[in-house]
Amino acid sequence: MNYPSALPLGHVRFTGGYLAERTRLVREVVIPYQWDALNDRVPGAEPSGCVHNFQVAAGEKPGKFYGLFWQDSDLAKWLEAASYRLATHPDPKLEAEIDRLIATLAKAQGPDGYLNTYFQLVEPQSRWANLRDCHELYVAGHMIEAGVAHFRATGKRTLLDVVCKLADLIDRTFGLQPGQIPGYCGHEEIELALVKLARATGEARYLKLASYFIDQRGQEPNYLQAETERRGDKLPWHMYHDGLATLQAAQPVRELKEPVGHAVRQMYLLAAMADLAVENKDATLLQSCRTLWESIVRRHLYLTGGVGSEPYGEKFTEPFDLPPDRAYAETCAAIGVIFFARRLLEIELHGAYADVMERALYNNVQSGMSVDGTKFFYVNPLELIPAVAKRRYECHLVKTQRVGWFGCACCPPNVARLFASLGEYVASQRPDGLALHLYAASELRFTASGRDVRLAVTTDYPWDDKVAIAVNPTAPTEFTLHLRVPGRCRGATLTVNGQSQPLAPVNGYAALRRTWQAGDRVELVLPMPVERVHADPRVATVAGCTALQRGPVVYCVEEADHGPNLAALTLPRTAPLTVRRDPALLGGCVVIETTGTRQRPSADLYSTTAIATEATPLRAIPYGLWANRGEGEMRVWIRES
Amino acid sequence: MNYPSALPLGHVRFTGGYLAERTRLVREVVIPYQWDALNDRVPGAEPSGCVHNFQVAAGEKPGKFYGLFWQDSDLAKWLEAASYRLATHPDPKLEAEIDRLIATLAKAQGPDGYLNTYFQLVEPQSRWANLRDCHELYVAGHMIEAGVAHFRATGKRTLLDVVCKLADLIDRTFGLQPGQIPGYCGHEEIELALVKLARATGEARYLKLASYFIDQRGQEPNYLQAETERRGDKLPWHMYHDGLATLQAAQPVRELKEPVGHAVRQMYLLAAMADLAVENKDATLLQSCRTLWESIVRRHLYLTGGVGSEPYGEKFTEPFDLPPDRAYAETCAAIGVIFFARRLLEIELHGAYADVMERALYNNVQSGMSVDGTKFFYVNPLELIPAVAKRRYECHLVKTQRVGWFGCACCPPNVARLFASLGEYVASQRPDGLALHLYAASELRFTASGRDVRLAVTTDYPWDDKVAIAVNPTAPTEFTLHLRVPGRCRGATLTVNGQSQPLAPVNGYAALRRTWQAGDRVELVLPMPVERVHADPRVATVAGCTALQRGPVVYCVEEADHGPNLAALTLPRTAPLTVRRDPALLGGCVVIETTGTRQRPSADLYSTTAIATEATPLRAIPYGLWANRGEGEMRVWIRES
Repeated sequence: MNYPSALPLGHVRFTGGYLAERTRLVREVVIPYQWDALNDRVPGAEPSGCVHNFQVAAGEKPGKFYGLFWQDSDLAKWLEAASYRLATHPDPKLEAEIDRLIATLAKAQGPDGYLNTYFQLVEPQSRWANLRDCHELYVAGHMIEAGVAHFRATGKRTLLDVVCKLADLIDRTFGLQPGQIPGYCGHEEIELALVKLARATGEARYLKLASYFIDQRGQEPNYLQAETERRGDKLPWHMYHDGLATLQAAQPVRELKEPVGHAVRQMYLLAAMADLAVENKDATLLQSCRTLWESIVRRHLYLTGGVGSEPYGEKFTEPFDLPPDRAYAETCAAIGVIFFARRLLEIELHGAYADVMERALYNNVQSGMSVDGTKFFYVNPLELIPAVAKRRYECHLVKTQRVGWFGCACCPPNVARLFASLGEYVASQRPDGLALHLYAASELRFTASGRDVRLAVTTDYPWDDKVAIAVNPTAPTEFTLHLRVPGRCRGATLTVNGQSQPLAPVNGYAALRRTWQAGDRVELVLPMPVERVHADPRVATVAGCTALQRGPVVYCVEEADHGPNLAALTLPRTAPLTVRRDPALLGGCVVIETTGTRQRPSADLYSTTAIATEATPLRAIPYGLWANRGEGEMRVWIRES
Repeated sequence: MNYPSALPLGHVRFTGGYLAERTRLVREVVIPYQWDALNDRVPGAEPSGCVHNFQVAAGEKPGKFYGLFWQDSDLAKWLEAASYRLATHPDPKLEAEIDRLIATLAKAQGPDGYLNTYFQLVEPQSRWANLRDCHELYVAGHMIEAGVAHFRATGKRTLLDVVCKLADLIDRTFGLQPGQIPGYCGHEEIELALVKLARATGEARYLKLASYFIDQRGQEPNYLQAETERRGDKLPWHMYHDGLATLQAAQPVRELKEPVGHAVRQMYLLAAMADLAVENKDATLLQSCRTLWESIVRRHLYLTGGVGSEPYGEKFTEPFDLPPDRAYAETCAAIGVIFFARRLLEIELHGAYADVMERALYNNVQSGMSVDGTKFFYVNPLELIPAVAKRRYECHLVKTQRVGWFGCACCPPNVARLFASLGEYVASQRPDGLALHLYAASELRFTASGRDVRLAVTTDYPWDDKVAIAVNPTAPTEFTLHLRVPGRCRGATLTVNGQSQPLAPVNGYAALRRTWQAGDRVELVLPMPVERVHADPRVATVAGCTALQRGPVVYCVEEADHGPNLAALTLPRTAPLTVRRDPALLGGCVVIETTGTRQRPSADLYSTTAIATEATPLRAIPYGLWANRGEGEMRVWIRES
């Protein structure tokens, strides 16, 4: 497992509803589609070159390297996702295809363990020479994650051996001993991967190597600075404002008080820091994780669970600078938020982490993939006027509609690996029982007091507020079910076998301890009225606006329902908000409806009379499902009147 | 004169109040300061190199070219401004200094008439080879404007001869005849300059050349396209969205329906088109001017009279895309708006043109210069949060405080030449008398029915609504005074010698025809209540906001009066707005005061309870005078509650 407390992937089965549909899409549509994409078999999409590059490096075909220098990581992430799929849904055909691919990878690997097709095929003389920009250790990290996932899913060591050989090379190469490179990667990823490898293999040296990368980062003399000077390089464009802090490398990571720089890197770094805080019982590292978590959720988090408010360099900016139209909110960064939150949940069972994890999942990450699983967003703004986004330079990375693949295709396979491993986010095995984090129609298997227990969860969450859990231990067993009660939730109720139970959640979890019998039935009601959310007024760009939210789902209005100029809409403070389940819309969802007002266009650009308004029906749809009905305006934050 | 109907500069004297102070500052502070800057004598400011470059080109000193390739134009604009100053305030010392400078310029000029220190000193082989980027004709245009201004001010032909020789070279070089270059400049300017030269010299060939440049622009086969291909160039970064339309060169200029591309270029082009529409009695060109004017004022004009809403390339974008924080609203572009408006006023006496001219003058242009005349803004946003502006890439050209000089210092000397020639914007000589456009304490001399007439205007405009005009013809004379009544003005009243007069302005001007006697006294009251302005809701970024305006002056709130987080302020719809003259503030101005509300910071980034508010005093100051009290937030558009 990616998380020590997670249930093995094969022990969590989504049986229906929202998350089951997403995992099905990833399994049946996304993973096969991406395999085609990685093999350059998708007509009209930007070519990937990934498989081709490995085949060339393995000597299986002639040709040249194609793509960007971190291209291998796309394949690695797909391999990881496909491995998770094998764990939940064994598939001999897919497994054989993966075996063939792994054989190619093994052939491509250098005798010393090196594996990176760009540097093998294009710049063999430049190996490890530009850690700041060239992502070699990042790519290795993704390969390691794939190796661990494949080993866990299949028990085969084929890819694990490849990545151990690679990790051993890295271990020999990097460090503070004479002859070693005292560096670290410009893009964090290897660190969390090495923790996984250590856990999978039991080899402490991989943990030590991960700790070295974390501890050495940003220390003086600054390795990346020295490397930059050695090359006679200037700082590249994306380091414009922050210099090496773009890479979280301007100071030791324990000194960070606010998130900084490239958002995905920052989140991957934090995930590794949380892992190592646990593994090394490192209190100061844990404190840094907590400080950064607080800073992120209090000053840097989009309502949709995304981070990174500046497209230029895909970065964090100032506290409270969260413009909706210029949000970057990269799909990968929201996945990074989930990685970090899930790890903190590992350290401390606290609903605050699960709340953010769920927010990112249902909103920013869901926005990253179309409802049919064939198209993806990299950038996930909270407001879009297509003509403006196409015209203003600061929006030039925004796609106004999802696309099939990207030249830099980090996000689609990241979505795939997250959804393919989603079972690991549903629950945690606890010493005293089980904690349930995500509610979804599902069947779970776990162990309590040495006995097998099966749970069958029935719910239409996130659309419905009722969660029924059938508990089936193999024999009567005393243990605790920790049931998450979302922080937003008021008036939650609980029954066991029809008997009302007191519900007093501590840190967002209600602990239900009893001797469970086969056939026990828990019913939880988690009221989800429509809520009007307001941002702290220091978020200047949405002052005076409200956003609608129901349960974990953030809503938006779309041009498809209202015509253009969504800025002209206002939502009266007193307007009653009704919810309606629409099974035909966007794969089935709940819409929020009311009557709002719309300002009419003026005759003059500026006028000294009040703008005329008219009543208008308003319909909000789940943000995660936006842009599935053609190109048009979208807006999460609606002006309140 | 720059405008056929303008009064000669020596015939307009500002005697006190707002505009007199600005023209005094330009005369006594800005022009001497800029002369020091152009001579690299300002400690701490970015060096200019302008005078140095000419001295090197003239062989007067050794050295290399310094600066950007259009650097000569900074000097030319200063020369133009200084010449206007000589016209209004003769100054033998300055005149002698200018004479010496002109002698250097004449020495620097090549035997064939070529004059451009960059191409003479750095790339002599590349003359006229990159019209798209290299601004040679633009620089020549500014030199021509300087030559005309110097000739008009002093009667000396020294610089006029230099620029005629240069214009003659250009006339020989460019055109559709065999052996000529069928090109035009990437940055319009030469066109309007050649019209001035034609008017000053009476030489029709300069008009013909200007017409050629206008007519040839954007014609197929596209010269700039062909030139680009010849060089094997890519389009530069600033043409990212629009290609050659960035330079208004993607199609013949008569086909333009919306302003496009670089805002200063677009405005200079339009100024020249208006000039040529008059000179050539060209009805289709005039129609194009009118179409573009309407489009600009209806869809592309900032409330402050600025244009150019995209920093990346200093460009026009989509209709109604007028974000206040990402405004470019370059000082030079607002000056271009004034040039275009003043020329249209030449064609048709209509208050709509004067209203926009006045709006740009008191707001965007005034913002371009500090109240002490020593510092300048290039970019004039309508909203600023300094920490955010310093941190977001799309704001990286915004200065959060005015600076003394710029590496690309087009704006400061442009402000100087505008204010130094401001007398030309005050009034127009009409066949039947005089039209007054700008109200300022001033003395004017003009001719009506063959007789000299002097006007003495007494007013504290724009702070006070009363304008008194003493009319003094040398003998009783019948003529019409066309008095502008701003379009925003309701309830204006008029008396002549204390007798109330009917006031029925036509197209924004009240025509007062009578036989005027020495000592006649006109009193005009132009009520200027505080107005709440609302933008068309299609301006999405300011929907729900209001701006305050009084007379021609747009107001803003500043951190200096309210502390940070101005987005938290709201102005209740019913709040009474009081005005107060504050003689000590910002050189003396009228402030608007009321009680508003302020949202308190929240404990959480997002909350489902309403944000707490408190009453707070609000004080708005004139936008043009912002950023004169240290660095801080500023906001024109205030949320209305």
